[in-house]
Formats: sequence, C-alpha cells, structure tokens
Amino acid sequence: MNIPAPYLLMLGDSSDPLSIKTARGIHYWRPEKCLAQLRLNENTASLSLPEMDVKTASENGAKTLVLGTANAGGVLAEHWIPLIVEAISLGMNIASGLHQKLTDVPAIAEAADKYGVTLFDIRHNNDKLDVGSGEKRAGKRLLTVGTDCSVGKMFTTLALEKVMLERGMDATFCATGQTGILIQGSGIAIDAVVADFISGATEALSPACNPERWQLVEGQGSLLNPAFSGVTMGLLHGAQPDALVLCHEVGRDHMRHLPHVEMPSLDDIMSLSLTMATLTNPNPRFVGIAVNTSKLDDAEALTYLNRLSEQYKLPATDPVRYGVASIVDHLESVFGG
Amino acid sequence: MNIPAPYLLMLGDSSDPLSIKTARGIHYWRPEKCLAQLRLNENTASLSLPEMDVKTASENGAKTLVLGTANAGGVLAEHWIPLIVEAISLGMNIASGLHQKLTDVPAIAEAADKYGVTLFDIRHNNDKLDVGSGEKRAGKRLLTVGTDCSVGKMFTTLALEKVMLERGMDATFCATGQTGILIQGSGIAIDAVVADFISGATEALSPACNPERWQLVEGQGSLLNPAFSGVTMGLLHGAQPDALVLCHEVGRDHMRHLPHVEMPSLDDIMSLSLTMATLTNPNPRFVGIAVNTSKLDDAEALTYLNRLSEQYKLPATDPVRYGVASIVDHLESVFGG
Repeated sequence: MNIPAPYLLMLGDSSDPLSIKTARGIHYWRPEKCLAQLRLNENTASLSLPEMDVKTASENGAKTLVLGTANAGGVLAEHWIPLIVEAISLGMNIASGLHQKLTDVPAIAEAADKYGVTLFDIRHNNDKLDVGSGEKRAGKRLLTVGTDCSVGKMFTTLALEKVMLERGMDATFCATGQTGILIQGSGIAIDAVVADFISGATEALSPACNPERWQLVEGQGSLLNPAFSGVTMGLLHGAQPDALVLCHEVGRDHMRHLPHVEMPSLDDIMSLSLTMATLTNPNPRFVGIAVNTSKLDDAEALTYLNRLSEQYKLPATDPVRYGVASIVDHLESVFGG
Repeated sequence: MNIPAPYLLMLGDSSDPLSIKTARGIHYWRPEKCLAQLRLNENTASLSLPEMDVKTASENGAKTLVLGTANAGGVLAEHWIPLIVEAISLGMNIASGLHQKLTDVPAIAEAADKYGVTLFDIRHNNDKLDVGSGEKRAGKRLLTVGTDCSVGKMFTTLALEKVMLERGMDATFCATGQTGILIQGSGIAIDAVVADFISGATEALSPACNPERWQLVEGQGSLLNPAFSGVTMGLLHGAQPDALVLCHEVGRDHMRHLPHVEMPSLDDIMSLSLTMATLTNPNPRFVGIAVNTSKLDDAEALTYLNRLSEQYKLPATDPVRYGVASIVDHLESVFGG
C-alpha cells in the first residue's frame, strides 16, 4: 500500500473538531502532503488549509481524496458518494479509514474500475500475509508500548521519527493504525488482520533493512488491556524491538472503556514487555518514557517527569510539551548515533 | 453456528491416513454423530464406517456433509463440486474447514440458496463480534495452554469433558479450532477472527452460565510461540480461566516449524500463564499437566510423568495412554465436584 500524495482532505459536514482528528493528524505530521481541504458547509471544522472542490484540487495536482473523518459507525454517508465518484472521474484515488469498504459501494467500485484509480480501504488489508517466524532481521527497531490504548503511542513514534530525521539519522515510521497509515501513506492496520497473522504482518511491515536504519513501529493497545492484549503481544513479538519507549497518561482512572479494569503500573508493563520481548530479541531495552501530562500544570508535570526519570534511570518527557529529544539522546548513547 | 448431525463424512480420494485426521477426530469423539463415510475410490483412507453415497446417506437421515479432509492449500477440488451440489439438492447442509469458502463457489452458493440449506465455512466467522471487556462472568472455566502448537490441547480438553460428563458433572467443550468445531458442531475458529476481536470472540464462546458448569475452552498456540502468541494471549484473557491444564510434548527439539526457536520450559509457560491470567481472573490455578509421551516407552513415560507430578505437585498424565481421570480428581478436590 502506498497512498499517492498530495491529498485533498475531505472534512465532511460536522462542526465537531474531534470529527476531523484524523485529518488534523495528517496535516500536523505531513503538511507537505496536504494540498487543500474540502468542507461540505461553512460550519464544518477546519484545518485552515486552502479550500478546494474536487475539480479545483484535481487541477492543482491532488492525487488522492482522503476521507479524514471518523463517522459514527464507520459508515459512508450516502450524500458523499456522488462527490467521491466525481473525484474518481477526475483521476483521483480514494483513501478511507471507514469500516465500510469503498469497494463494497457499487457506484464507487465501478467508477474506480472505469477510471483506473485505486481505492485504499486502509482498515482492510488485501496483501497476502504469512504467519510470523520470529527470526532475527537486520536493522534496528523501536516499538512504543503503553499502559493502555490512546496514551500517545502514535504521536510519540512520529515525534521520535521527526527528531531522528532532523539529526540525520536513518529512521522510518511504520504505521499500524488507520491514522498512522494515512499520515505515512503506507502501513498495515494490525488490529484488522486475521488473528493468525498479527506477528507475521508486523514482520512484513518492518522487514530486514540497512543495519543502521531504525524502524519505528507504532504500538497498539496494551499487554494488560484485556480487549486488545492479543494484538499488542503479536506486535511485540513481530517487531522484535531493540528499543522500547513506554507511553502513559497521567491521571487516567481506569483502562479506557473498561471501568472495572485498573490501570496497570509502569513497572508491570515494563517488566512484562521486556520478558515477552526477549522471545524474539535477545536484548530489548527501554530507552525512554513518554507521558501525556495534560491533566497537570507545568510545575506538576515537571515534578512528575523528574521523579519517573530518577526512578527508572531513563529520560521521561511529555512529547507534546517538551518534545522527545531527550529520548533520542539516550537512544544514541545506548545504540550509537 | 450449530452444525446439524448426523454427518456424512467425506473422506475424499487420498490414501494418506493423515489426510482424514479431522474426520477421524470427529468419529473418535462423537461417533454418535457419524452416520457414514464417503470415499471417492477404494484406496481412500477409511474410518470403517458404513459406506454411503450422498443419496443413500440422505435417505438414512444425514443432515450435513462434512468435508473432513485437509487439502493442500485448503482449496476445494473441482471434481468434488458436483457431489456437493447433489448433497445440497437432497437437502443436506455442508460443513467445510477449508480456507476457500463454500460461499465463494458460485455453483455451491446458488444451490444452497435454491434448496435452503446452510453452508458452514468454519474457518470464516460470520457472527458479529465485539471487542472483549474482561468482565468476570458467572460459571467456571478451564483452559488448556501449551508449550507449543500441536501438543494435544484439543485432545486433552475433549478427554476432560468426557470424564467429567461420565461423572455427572456439568461440562461443555468450547471449540476454538476447525477440528474442534466439527467435533462439537459449534464454536469459533479463534485464529481466523479479526485481531481486534480475539478476546471478545472468546468471551462470546464461553458466556456467563450456571455457576456449577465448567466451560472447557480449547487452547491454541503458545504464549512463547512467536507466530501465534497473540492468539494465545487474547484467548487467555477472554477465557478468564479458573483452572488451567498445561499441555506438552516430550522430546520436541524446537518450536513447531521454527527450528531457530527453542522449546520453552514448563516453568516459564506456567508462570507466564498465571501472571497473564490474573488480569481477568483473580485466582487462576493449574490443575494438571497433560503430556504427549509417544516418543517414550511405557517405563520412561511413567518415570517422566511421576517426576513432573512431584515437581509441580500436580497430576501429570498422558491423556492417550493413561487418561485424564487424575486431573479431574484434582479439579474436583480443588473446586468441589
């Protein structure tokens, strides 16, 4: 999968800023890929990109119309279909993170066939996958692991890539979730593959490479989240990480959507991750802790992070507030620049 | 999914006894479901059931034609299609463990539609699944876990069910693999569900029940098999087992199909399983060890099992050679009869 840029970002018709979270992520991390935005009415939440309709965007070189909104139920709105078909008729590819497949909408599938464009249903993997082997591959890998879902694993991984590239290091973000895939233009939605292929898909996503390269694999779920631990486990074994970064959110009362499940301790996640990781990597090491401290004020956040840093002898930072340079410093000191 | 019995077991055309392994499992564990066998030539491996063609079987009450062979590639042989269509036209359902879906073969799908029978593609789950919650459910659950794949988890689980039913206990086998599903007539192929739903599917498979009932959940893979650990992990968290039985094969040199991966120690699997199981069950306990000792002679096997039993203070047995009554004895002493 390789989604051609530049993108026209479809923002839809909701005024809720949260509805364009995915599109905002693409724009934040890959502004160079974002040509324009398309809003269906003037109250739609905005990214302040140039406004273009499908035709104008096509004339200005847009290669893919990205459905960058999270609809309730993941279903495509009927009234978007004519617009999507128009984009296809102008030669644009379509990328969608919806549960409903573009290829299952006859008008869209027929148009794509007729005009020879690609429909990227990124929640649905069409590549032939194999089961994992656990064999050690050339190259270096970093995986973000978390105390829970939605604690900043994607953000942290992308932030690490940015700093590493700025320092001239060879680093690639390996996307494992919908938003990450739209940002990177490639990847595999690991939670959507058939269960047998979790680690095999991760191996395919981060194959043997130049020994100096860091593949930065976006983590998913948590080993101690009973809903998603299987995905996390297969991802850990498939990624065979040399380096791990722990992600956490301060002040979360319980596991997301699971009020009966306590948040695990950082200790538990770290020791369990290392224990499990040794199955496919002889020497996995944590190189940093990335914390969402948005519930704390600045002084509290710094006190908290300093305490973590002393306790674990690792850089601890909030990637949004303080960046991840400290983690990359430590990574370089442990593994070489 | 509930596959109507009695079955006509299709044994195909291979003389290799291994090719009818699935059919043999069904016949071994559920002889009462097996009306007859169908062989395409006289050299085909046999279960010594009455020979019937589709028409005779139908006249004798067969409800489902079971494709009980493991084809290379999991693809349906072209020359079987007319026979399957004939069975359908006589009102029989079809159950298949092949990768290729019956519903993807137009002649079969059309006939099923016309004659109102059901096509059971047991590798492909069509039920709507949810993500797991990890909430504690009523009833008692036992899960078999293993040092690797193919160490006798299904056999052990079915053997436990048999002994428990003979003792008048309330016990149900919960099938998680193709053969188990054909044996039981119901279940979910856990390795074939979308990764996000591993634990949720397991929860659906072993729902809240009578507090006295034991749901005996067929294990899959191994927490320390890098190809399948994700499935095993989700299954463990979804099954929330009260009791665990460890399955192992003596004398295996390395993990199945993975010559570069050492077999884990029994200690490692047991401690890891208990650590992980506590996430969804406050007090999981091993109640026995089931070992495939086929590489040992009788004296060696007994010495080996006695040693294990002393070391772990648990019954250790080879289910094929010595049965599993000792494990059920211990289960009853720990949890009550």
